Amino acid sequence: MFLMVSGLKKMAKFEGHVLPGTFVLIYGFCLTVKHVLQHLWRTHQPKGQQNMPPFFKRTDYAEGGFLIIAAFVGITVEWFVVDGPHVYFYRNGSWVNLQHSTMYLFFGISGIAMVASTRCKLVPTGVDRLALSLALFVEGFLFYYHVHNRPLLDAHIHKLVLVPVFGGSASTMLEVFIRDNIILELLRACLFILQGSWFYQIGFVLYPLRGPAWDSNDGNVMFITVCFCWHLAVALLLVACTYIVVWSTVRRFSGRQLDTEIGMRNTSSKTSSQKALLEESDEE
Amino acid sequence: MFLMVSGLKKMAKFEGHVLPGTFVLIYGFCLTVKHVLQHLWRTHQPKGQQNMPPFFKRTDYAEGGFLIIAAFVGITVEWFVVDGPHVYFYRNGSWVNLQHSTMYLFFGISGIAMVASTRCKLVPTGVDRLALSLALFVEGFLFYYHVHNRPLLDAHIHKLVLVPVFGGSASTMLEVFIRDNIILELLRACLFILQGSWFYQIGFVLYPLRGPAWDSNDGNVMFITVCFCWHLAVALLLVACTYIVVWSTVRRFSGRQLDTEIGMRNTSSKTSSQKALLEESDEE
Amino acid sequence: MFLMVSGLKKMAKFEGHVLPGTFVLIYGFCLTVKHVLQHLWRTHQPKGQQNMPPFFKRTDYAEGGFLIIAAFVGITVEWFVVDGPHVYFYRNGSWVNLQHSTMYLFFGISGIAMVASTRCKLVPTGVDRLALSLALFVEGFLFYYHVHNRPLLDAHIHKLVLVPVFGGSASTMLEVFIRDNIILELLRACLFILQGSWFYQIGFVLYPLRGPAWDSNDGNVMFITVCFCWHLAVALLLVACTYIVVWSTVRRFSGRQLDTEIGMRNTSSKTSSQKALLEESDEE
Amino acid sequence: MFLMVSGLKKMAKFEGHVLPGTFVLIYGFCLTVKHVLQHLWRTHQPKGQQNMPPFFKRTDYAEGGFLIIAAFVGITVEWFVVDGPHVYFYRNGSWVNLQHSTMYLFFGISGIAMVASTRCKLVPTGVDRLALSLALFVEGFLFYYHVHNRPLLDAHIHKLVLVPVFGGSASTMLEVFIRDNIILELLRACLFILQGSWFYQIGFVLYPLRGPAWDSNDGNVMFITVCFCWHLAVALLLVACTYIVVWSTVRRFSGRQLDTEIGMRNTSSKTSSQKALLEESDEE
Repeated sequence: MFLMVSGLKKMAKFEGHVLPGTFVLIYGFCLTVKHVLQHLWRTHQPKGQQNMPPFFKRTDYAEGGFLIIAAFVGITVEWFVVDGPHVYFYRNGSWVNLQHSTMYLFFGISGIAMVASTRCKLVPTGVDRLALSLALFVEGFLFYYHVHNRPLLDAHIHKLVLVPVFGGSASTMLEVFIRDNIILELLRACLFILQGSWFYQIGFVLYPLRGPAWDSNDGNVMFITVCFCWHLAVALLLVACTYIVVWSTVRRFSGRQLDTEIGMRNTSSKTSSQKALLEESDEE
Repeated sequence: MFLMVSGLKKMAKFEGHVLPGTFVLIYGFCLTVKHVLQHLWRTHQPKGQQNMPPFFKRTDYAEGGFLIIAAFVGITVEWFVVDGPHVYFYRNGSWVNLQHSTMYLFFGISGIAMVASTRCKLVPTGVDRLALSLALFVEGFLFYYHVHNRPLLDAHIHKLVLVPVFGGSASTMLEVFIRDNIILELLRACLFILQGSWFYQIGFVLYPLRGPAWDSNDGNVMFITVCFCWHLAVALLLVACTYIVVWSTVRRFSGRQLDTEIGMRNTSSKTSSQKALLEESDEE
Repeated sequence: MFLMVSGLKKMAKFEGHVLPGTFVLIYGFCLTVKHVLQHLWRTHQPKGQQNMPPFFKRTDYAEGGFLIIAAFVGITVEWFVVDGPHVYFYRNGSWVNLQHSTMYLFFGISGIAMVASTRCKLVPTGVDRLALSLALFVEGFLFYYHVHNRPLLDAHIHKLVLVPVFGGSASTMLEVFIRDNIILELLRACLFILQGSWFYQIGFVLYPLRGPAWDSNDGNVMFITVCFCWHLAVALLLVACTYIVVWSTVRRFSGRQLDTEIGMRNTSSKTSSQKALLEESDEE
Repeated sequence: MFLMVSGLKKMAKFEGHVLPGTFVLIYGFCLTVKHVLQHLWRTHQPKGQQNMPPFFKRTDYAEGGFLIIAAFVGITVEWFVVDGPHVYFYRNGSWVNLQHSTMYLFFGISGIAMVASTRCKLVPTGVDRLALSLALFVEGFLFYYHVHNRPLLDAHIHKLVLVPVFGGSASTMLEVFIRDNIILELLRACLFILQGSWFYQIGFVLYPLRGPAWDSNDGNVMFITVCFCWHLAVALLLVACTYIVVWSTVRRFSGRQLDTEIGMRNTSSKTSSQKALLEESDEE
């Protein structure tokens, strides 16, 4: 009986890292696709025509909505199912849950800012990025004070997550001032993917479903550090592959679906963008 | 008798955090209103007409004057009423008072810089922001060395105030180079509000008027960290609400009072700005 | 006899802080005057005429020459008079002198870069600022490792000098990208003045000519921190006063000496700049 | 026999620092030459003609290829010759090799990014710099966790290498936004040279071929710090000399070889650039 409860607790902790990791991973991946599409659209557009087509407005709403719903689900699960068997997060003194809820709250706020700045022209440009940057800062800030009094490996593996979190916060803050820079946008997406995949790694290392957790010797700590770099390399690879796939898909369908999907482009610009795409493919 | 003196001391310490907190809170709130008004004015102005109306000059004078008076009051209270029963600030070795006075001094200097740069065109643009940034830096610098040899919770709660202080210093320094950016201006206002409300929190946690001060266990430290994030969320909410209220008030009165108040706008621009406001309200 | 030698050593250490302090102080003051003159010249110049007059080229040569000569004197004194009675700098293990010489060397390099970039158009713009920034970085870097194994007050007072040194390095690095910004130029001058006056403070606190050195209690440490802020306030005041004095002097002599001194301005621009200055003085 | 094995191990460790040092040194030197050539070309070009000549495309391919080959060689040597007698790198727990391989991997990725962004116009501008910045960040990140549990001098000398590594990472990140700035490009080259020469220094201090390794007293630590500054001075000198030599070589051959080498310049621009070069040489 005790073993079963202990197993459930372990599974809950494992899921407590894997579930948010999945959300963050999906978010990062969607961000990549969205920003690559926006970049291709910006690149192939004639100079005069600067209005975003309604398709991108819809993706912004979707992004904001995703953040709001994810935050709502997160807070609900934490607060109302907290005494059920499946979602224990540490519970020393009952404050821990509030930490996670607070993180979710700020991502919810950034979702609201996203929707508001897409909906209403009076909201100053860049508020969405500022809110996202603050959300990441708050996440890093709470993680930083989260890791006191833990074993070495546990503290180290949690501290490494601060790199994508604070790095993402800084790069998103830069986006307030440097808008529509594809490098910054993909860097942000890449850091979200890294963060998500690292949550998986934390789950597998600290609360493995089979076998004991890793112990805190120096070799393990060093290997985890190296492992973190490999996650970064894989995240970069994933973003690069997505870029190539999206770009070739757009090129293939550019004559048929893309324009009707994105809408609002007139015939002349369509032809010129097609020509540009064809010229590029010739050039390669 | 001893209890009464001790009670008075405690009240003095409580007031010593609440009074500056109130000042900072009011300052942050006024900054929000001022910068939202300026932003609305900038947005609805035709491109050609760039002179600030005299109304904004007067708000700049008021802001500078407020800083100078607040600094003067602060220094006076610290230096001349210091042996009275009501305003003890720690007094270990008699230097502590000089710390607070030094902080006030730099805010006074930034008030003078504000007035001077509004009054005289020869003062280089941005001096007011540089002086404010330095004032915040000095405040953070002194706070940083203020918290040695204190109990854990006391040190932690004082260290958290460094986040809005140094954050505000950095964002104000950025404003030296990026002028008239509403995001940076509202971020600064928001960080002032956070700083003010956090002084209240310090007063209520460390020198509560009723009941004992909180003890330094890990749960309390963690809860205070979470609490800090809620203060940030409330500050963001307050700035957002102020933005909406100011904007809707301006829209309602834009046909009648605003132009006569702000002055100097000619009829054509008045009509165009009214039209723009009406179009926006239609669009929503 | 022993007392006399000890007294000489103490005097040498006192001078070892006061002499560089004097150099840095003078340099900071000259920078202020030079950059205020440049700023006034830039402000009152018509848009079309952008060539710097030869007077400013000469001040750049003078600045570079000052740095080279100061570095040469510093290194000579350190290396060749090091066994004489008057210039002991700490001498634990004989490496200390090399630290100071290395600092001087980099200021010499920045002097050479200054002269080269004024002399020859092929040297890329901004090399002088980069070299100065590196010189300040190296100074701070060596100071940082200089303060190990010292008593608390000694370490603290030496650590505080890192604020103007690294602050100056950062602001000078910014000047590589943001040229001709009066705020950054005066900030740099102000930080040099602060650094110089702080060397005086170190001399008076650690190696006072009369009475014992201060001891390392908490009150003293805190007071030194506050004292540092006052030095900053005085440095700001000095820069502001210099600005006002230089500006009013220029205004008084602008009809007579300035133009002949600065040279190369034609009659029309002279009259327009005079008019501008007169209009400003009327406006006040 | 034991002595011989120990001697071989020491030599392996010495080579393990000198070989990468040589690679980095050569890379830094080639970067200097390449960026000086690019800068001279940009400076002497008429405004209208902005296409890079094919010569520079070829140097970009060469740079990317060099990085890919160096990374490939490094990883191969580490992984496949690791049990041979000549290339021991520390081997505590067998993870260490993975650290070095991971560093090489990221430089390989940055080489691929370099080639891709030169080859294909669809790769966003600045990706090559971002990848190089990440490679340097990963190198610094792994070095930072590399130095735990070592003797003082060993840890200190390894920590100093973080200055050029993180400095280079930051300056390369800046280049993503500020393209074609010769100061940043030469700073990057200079930091690579510093890093390379410092690897030599580490080899000579910790694993000297003759005599014992240095011990960890304070004098040695301080001297190493000073020594680091001299390496920086020498790196600056080397970059400056290269600049002068390249510039004078280009000036001498500008009438004959350069244009045919770089290609694609028409006669008029050739004459104007020659004239500009001659005028400069007269001016000096």
